[in-house]
Amino acid sequence: VEAGDRALVLGLVEPLHAADIADFLEQIDASERLAFLALYSGEIDGDLLSEIDETIREEVIGSLPAEVVAEAVRDLDTDDVVDILEDLDSPAQGRILDALDMADRVAVEQAMAYPEGSAGRLMQREVVVAPEHWTVGEAIDFLRGEEVLPDQFYHVILVDPRMKPLGYVTLGRILSARREAALKDLAEESFRTVEADEDEEEVAYIFNQYHLISCPVVDAGGRLVGVITIDDAMNVLDEGHEEDMLLLAGVGEEASVLDGPFATVRQRLPWLVVNLFTASLSAFVISRFEATITAIVALAALMPIVASTGGIAGTQSLAVAVRALATRDLTAANARRVVLRELAAGAINGMALAAILGLAGWAIFGDPWIGGVLAMAMIVNQIVAALGGVLVPLTLERMGLDPALASGTFVTTLTDVMGFLAFLGLATLVLL
Amino acid sequence: VEAGDRALVLGLVEPLHAADIADFLEQIDASERLAFLALYSGEIDGDLLSEIDETIREEVIGSLPAEVVAEAVRDLDTDDVVDILEDLDSPAQGRILDALDMADRVAVEQAMAYPEGSAGRLMQREVVVAPEHWTVGEAIDFLRGEEVLPDQFYHVILVDPRMKPLGYVTLGRILSARREAALKDLAEESFRTVEADEDEEEVAYIFNQYHLISCPVVDAGGRLVGVITIDDAMNVLDEGHEEDMLLLAGVGEEASVLDGPFATVRQRLPWLVVNLFTASLSAFVISRFEATITAIVALAALMPIVASTGGIAGTQSLAVAVRALATRDLTAANARRVVLRELAAGAINGMALAAILGLAGWAIFGDPWIGGVLAMAMIVNQIVAALGGVLVPLTLERMGLDPALASGTFVTTLTDVMGFLAFLGLATLVLL
Repeated sequence: VEAGDRALVLGLVEPLHAADIADFLEQIDASERLAFLALYSGEIDGDLLSEIDETIREEVIGSLPAEVVAEAVRDLDTDDVVDILEDLDSPAQGRILDALDMADRVAVEQAMAYPEGSAGRLMQREVVVAPEHWTVGEAIDFLRGEEVLPDQFYHVILVDPRMKPLGYVTLGRILSARREAALKDLAEESFRTVEADEDEEEVAYIFNQYHLISCPVVDAGGRLVGVITIDDAMNVLDEGHEEDMLLLAGVGEEASVLDGPFATVRQRLPWLVVNLFTASLSAFVISRFEATITAIVALAALMPIVASTGGIAGTQSLAVAVRALATRDLTAANARRVVLRELAAGAINGMALAAILGLAGWAIFGDPWIGGVLAMAMIVNQIVAALGGVLVPLTLERMGLDPALASGTFVTTLTDVMGFLAFLGLATLVLL
Repeated sequence: VEAGDRALVLGLVEPLHAADIADFLEQIDASERLAFLALYSGEIDGDLLSEIDETIREEVIGSLPAEVVAEAVRDLDTDDVVDILEDLDSPAQGRILDALDMADRVAVEQAMAYPEGSAGRLMQREVVVAPEHWTVGEAIDFLRGEEVLPDQFYHVILVDPRMKPLGYVTLGRILSARREAALKDLAEESFRTVEADEDEEEVAYIFNQYHLISCPVVDAGGRLVGVITIDDAMNVLDEGHEEDMLLLAGVGEEASVLDGPFATVRQRLPWLVVNLFTASLSAFVISRFEATITAIVALAALMPIVASTGGIAGTQSLAVAVRALATRDLTAANARRVVLRELAAGAINGMALAAILGLAGWAIFGDPWIGGVLAMAMIVNQIVAALGGVLVPLTLERMGLDPALASGTFVTTLTDVMGFLAFLGLATLVLL
């Protein structure tokens, strides 16, 4: 295909959805991508630019002639243009802004003035509004008369003369009502707006919680400035999950499978270095017990069992707590109950594991005291792990930090240190 | 509030959204919940039942008089009724089915006949269709004449006389076109349907990939049987993420912060027991080197550093790979490139960490050989961790299993065993 047959390439790609072409571009390597774009360009679609992953978008835009990019972005709604601009450097931003119509350009620049990750960045400026006193017939006639309507709209927003939103009517209701019906009487029962500087994760939560399909955005004065649609909220929700999962694992939140090795090292090495220091804590704890290990060298082989099982238990408790904080199922109102639940579950798990490990230790070493020490250390560490898994993210949240941030490293350090300390400490007391 | 003042309770709860009342019920404890429901019942809303978390829904429904539940479910769309029924035992299901109108009952029973987790369970049966040859005017007149329309609909689906869907028109387009326009000419360019037995995760992926707002569902014969709306797809996406995160951490996918201690133990203990056995592998490896440890007891303190840093690196690589498999950014087409990228990143991280740890080891123990052994073991284990993190989920996926399933346990076992083996093995060769 890359043999230069332009007609063939276009013929193959033509029937595909922009999202699929973008996936294809992401998965081939950089030189194939350039060759493909050289053949394909001139026909590039704005949707393709917005579908493409941000890690390669700059490269793609850079490889295209400026006028092709300008043409492509002109068809997009403002929220998609903002999304593309966010990740470019400022000369590239300027070139795209210059290509837009005056009105779109102002709209995009206003949106870019809101902080990154805010509702203002997420919204489209294209809104469909009607005065509150209009009838269904007036609204339909108005819509028929408009030349340009947004690609997506699901409600007509009712506004007062100062553009304050008062409610909204779904298009389904407008279509099924008689022409004489007042829009006001068809408005949805529940109606909410978000402020333009609201955090986008909060917006996604509101969409998910209240099953919204679109939501008007207002400025500090309460006036309508745009609308956010559910597909954008779904995207934020999706990225929020990704961020939680990657942060929990100690990877930079921007990590992508498409990154090269150096970007990957940059994201991961910092946490590995942090872990090198926290692991040295465990080493220090163990080194305090060298006399005990010298006396009974079998302890050296057994000590990772208690630490490792504690690490898994801490990770389990942590995953449930981080998820519950994200969905707001864990709040100040039930934190006490959840912590007590973890305490109870940790104690029960600890006793069950202690029974297995204690008996196995006794059987293998023929010494009930070794079994007893393993069992006791296991119970202590399982309780520490279960509590740590919920208390670490709760504490981070209370400090105003992301509860997923490096929780994994904190919790496994805790369970490692406690695991070695409990096991070797008890062994020193009981066995020597 | 729980002092029995019914009017006060209703007054406080009345202005709240069903989703917020459900959250409130989830966060108070079981006895408060019963007292609250006793006061509140008689007025219960179908939406509240569908918002409530499935872990307590059975309890809530059990505590309400049968006729109150029956009344509540009657207003819901069929997909919401199906969602409630799925989690109940069969006598409770029967009571709710009996309460429905004949038509709704048949629709719900047909949906329940599709496998759990399929598009057929997710769809609502209420659809808005029009013959392909209709004009906008005919469609509007038809909608105005219908008594009952679905709560949510965003498209009119065009069908042939045998109910095969041919395309769809957004309501926005219908509203903005003249009455004479043919619906056919307004149909969306891209149109796709899903089969009723398609997996719901696949459906959520299609919505997210193609930015759909609703999608018709067809049976094996290609006839329209229902429609899935984006809010349901968003919900599946959300739960799919939760499942991945919990499975990665070795927790049952149904785990919730609302579970009691025994449910929690049931979810977590199995993986802890598995880990007890895998950790014994590490113990076995270490026990083979008891002579080495006896000779240089400091090795016992140092050995967890290499294993623990490897565990973190494996978790990082794993999180990125599992996420990329879920979003289909990692496929057969680029697996080779991603594996090579991990190999390179692992080697670079390993060398960086080896430099720090090797010099520290030399400085602290005054012996360049100890530093050298630490450094070499670190490089080996970082490479194993990076490769294991991507190869384990790829292998699980190729075997048709969920790539998140217990990957965490496999990868940390691998990095523990390799960490101890590389460090103690090299130490035996070099230092003795």
